[in-house]
Amino acid sequence: MNEEMKIFFDEILQLLEEKRFTRLRELLAEAKPVDIAEAIEEMEEEEPQNTILLFRLLPKDLAADVFSHLSVSDQKNIVNVLHEHQLKQIVEELNFDDKIDFLEEMPANVVKRILLNVTEEERKLINQFLNYPEDSAGSLMTIEYIDLKKEMTVAEALQYIKNTGVDKETIYTSYVLNETRKLEGIVSLRKLVLAEPEMTVGSIMDEDLLYTTTLDDQEEVADLFKKYDLMTIPVVDQESRLVGIITIDDIVDVIEQENTEDFEKMAALLPGEEEYLDAGIFNMAKKRLPWLLILMISATFTGSIISRFEDVLQAVVVLAAAIPMLMDTAGNAGNQSSTLVIRGIALGEIEMGDYLTVLWKEFRISIVVGVMLAVVNLARMLIMVKTSWLIAITVSFTLAITVVLAKIFGGLMPIIAKKLKVDPAIMAGPLITTIVDAMALIVYFRIATLILGIH
Amino acid sequence: MNEEMKIFFDEILQLLEEKRFTRLRELLAEAKPVDIAEAIEEMEEEEPQNTILLFRLLPKDLAADVFSHLSVSDQKNIVNVLHEHQLKQIVEELNFDDKIDFLEEMPANVVKRILLNVTEEERKLINQFLNYPEDSAGSLMTIEYIDLKKEMTVAEALQYIKNTGVDKETIYTSYVLNETRKLEGIVSLRKLVLAEPEMTVGSIMDEDLLYTTTLDDQEEVADLFKKYDLMTIPVVDQESRLVGIITIDDIVDVIEQENTEDFEKMAALLPGEEEYLDAGIFNMAKKRLPWLLILMISATFTGSIISRFEDVLQAVVVLAAAIPMLMDTAGNAGNQSSTLVIRGIALGEIEMGDYLTVLWKEFRISIVVGVMLAVVNLARMLIMVKTSWLIAITVSFTLAITVVLAKIFGGLMPIIAKKLKVDPAIMAGPLITTIVDAMALIVYFRIATLILGIH
Repeated sequence: MNEEMKIFFDEILQLLEEKRFTRLRELLAEAKPVDIAEAIEEMEEEEPQNTILLFRLLPKDLAADVFSHLSVSDQKNIVNVLHEHQLKQIVEELNFDDKIDFLEEMPANVVKRILLNVTEEERKLINQFLNYPEDSAGSLMTIEYIDLKKEMTVAEALQYIKNTGVDKETIYTSYVLNETRKLEGIVSLRKLVLAEPEMTVGSIMDEDLLYTTTLDDQEEVADLFKKYDLMTIPVVDQESRLVGIITIDDIVDVIEQENTEDFEKMAALLPGEEEYLDAGIFNMAKKRLPWLLILMISATFTGSIISRFEDVLQAVVVLAAAIPMLMDTAGNAGNQSSTLVIRGIALGEIEMGDYLTVLWKEFRISIVVGVMLAVVNLARMLIMVKTSWLIAITVSFTLAITVVLAKIFGGLMPIIAKKLKVDPAIMAGPLITTIVDAMALIVYFRIATLILGIH
Repeated sequence: MNEEMKIFFDEILQLLEEKRFTRLRELLAEAKPVDIAEAIEEMEEEEPQNTILLFRLLPKDLAADVFSHLSVSDQKNIVNVLHEHQLKQIVEELNFDDKIDFLEEMPANVVKRILLNVTEEERKLINQFLNYPEDSAGSLMTIEYIDLKKEMTVAEALQYIKNTGVDKETIYTSYVLNETRKLEGIVSLRKLVLAEPEMTVGSIMDEDLLYTTTLDDQEEVADLFKKYDLMTIPVVDQESRLVGIITIDDIVDVIEQENTEDFEKMAALLPGEEEYLDAGIFNMAKKRLPWLLILMISATFTGSIISRFEDVLQAVVVLAAAIPMLMDTAGNAGNQSSTLVIRGIALGEIEMGDYLTVLWKEFRISIVVGVMLAVVNLARMLIMVKTSWLIAITVSFTLAITVVLAKIFGGLMPIIAKKLKVDPAIMAGPLITTIVDAMALIVYFRIATLILGIH
């Protein structure tokens, strides 16, 4: 909570304590829905017994808006104590896309309770929307858009927007449909306002339009928004009929969600949608265990390299002291390269055809970085650790070579993954680390046997 | 490039080859500016000699729009061969915020050339904008907004928007200013269109508005957009005078840029703005070397732990084989926790006050994860590697304890960093890995001396 939110929340607490409910109602009516939702979540943490009271004090039209901003767990808590007619009121007031989001998260009995209270037509529509796969364009869209006809004049269109616009998600883009609801064009409110009143909608609409279909992946939709600076995009079905629109505010959430998924994959986590503080212990463990297990078992291989060179280690035990540094530096160097390439791919800056460019670039960078690190390490070992010359040279030489290998490998793996249709983010961090660790050890022992003359 | 872009690009190539410039001009006039910019960048890679020709074929009004979507290096190439009057035309046509972005990237002699060609008034304004710090709200804003007066009627306001709106970045929000240009309120086009024509702007404007000041950090501005689902936000100076507005399309870029910075910090890179393929070798090496050096030198400490327990290792060399697995698993486990907490902080889900919740959560999760890993490892060592019971127990026991330590440490470090006003993202990945590696080794050798009875 920032300063302003704290002041707001303290005022709520005080009014509640003094039971000055009329004043509290006024305070809430003036506040922004998101801020009230934040206050309710804070109340749930500090004085859970007052959460419902606070929610009940909200004016009806504000209640739905606040409700849509609450976390899933708070929504559940509130739904459980609301009376049937109160729940019905809130669900009616929710925007269609918020309604679908809410129903997706509720347990079956709540969904049933709610579906009993809506019209046959709306029930069908809700069921259709609930069936769109998670992360699809269909799951993001809303049906609250403005549809116009080609034959309307600009004046008629503006009057129509004025009459019907109040419940729409956006009135800034209108969709021009024919009698079978096929999408023929779009027209922005900007164009309508700037056009002469007697012109027809058909003459000013944009026919060369971008659209998406219900089953498209939300990440591709977000890429369209980013590339073309869109505010909304229409969603059509297989027969080009308009079924809904997606607005930029939902895309901003998608972008953050996709970024979170990449962060999670790169940290060897299975991605999931639950917020950290809301997630249960076993769900959290399930996110973390699979990759830890896989990586632990693949580290057996790294261990077996050490076992294989046990004689070398036995002969010169001091070699063991450099193992952590070599492994860590190789891992870090590889990880730097893979992160840059993965991010470049995600942002569309690097494509599959660029693999030779990446290879050549990583090679040259790694020479610069590897030599610098090796020189510093040589000085460090000779001056600080006071190792013998031969050992210091062995370690530094290994360092330079593994940095080059790790960077080339780290730079190329994400591109190869993309080529194999594996998510590049999976290739980063831990997986690269495990592989370059093994490379570092093999190089180390080979060079050690050569330079130190051990067999 | 996707399929559609390839078709578009091939058509351009063919028309160029056949010298059918009239048809090519038509094709370009119908295309979207971003797509043309992408084609020009592709041309620069495949047939650089044709890049300028392609750019010169663009109709004047389109050229500026395409230009604003080009990469900095392509902009530089084009500026270098354009005639004075062509450059002047393009700069005149650029949106004000694109103009500033462009000038920020150009070398001093180009900026000078351009500033010679603008009016005294515009030169002042440009200089003012060029002085806003990078990553500040001031550097993101545009001056192309619509300003209204309180006393105007809705009909007058709509007429005014119609007359002046064509050059504005957005007409969907208008800003109500008093005679000293102080911001008194905002009014959306939606409200204007839905209101009665004879009402005054003052009576329907929203006075309780969100705004930002020129020196605010762009990340804070982006957080306001995300929290309140904004499309635009006004930017005011110290005296509450409106100086510009920021629109959502620029915020989407900020969000991606901030995410990229976090990815880079978490991979031990110094963040930078250059795209991977554009960056020079030495700039890239500079991004990577500092943390690699710091982490390499701090790994000396890890090495000294091994040196300290050299006798243990000498006595039971087989212990060395498990070192990579223990270090990797500890690093991965800590990294998982720190990534989740860092991301939670970045998205505003976790706050500083939550440190006890995080501690307790990580403790319970790590017990589950640690025990599972230890059991699997015990089986693995006994069955696959055929180690002795005592060694297998030593390694497994170490594994469980280090996973618990790594997860608690990984979960708390980002919160402590935030408390100390250090960027939490710096605390992830490599730094955590280095620290938990050292912890893992100390625990390992302590347990080994205890269980195996070595002194």
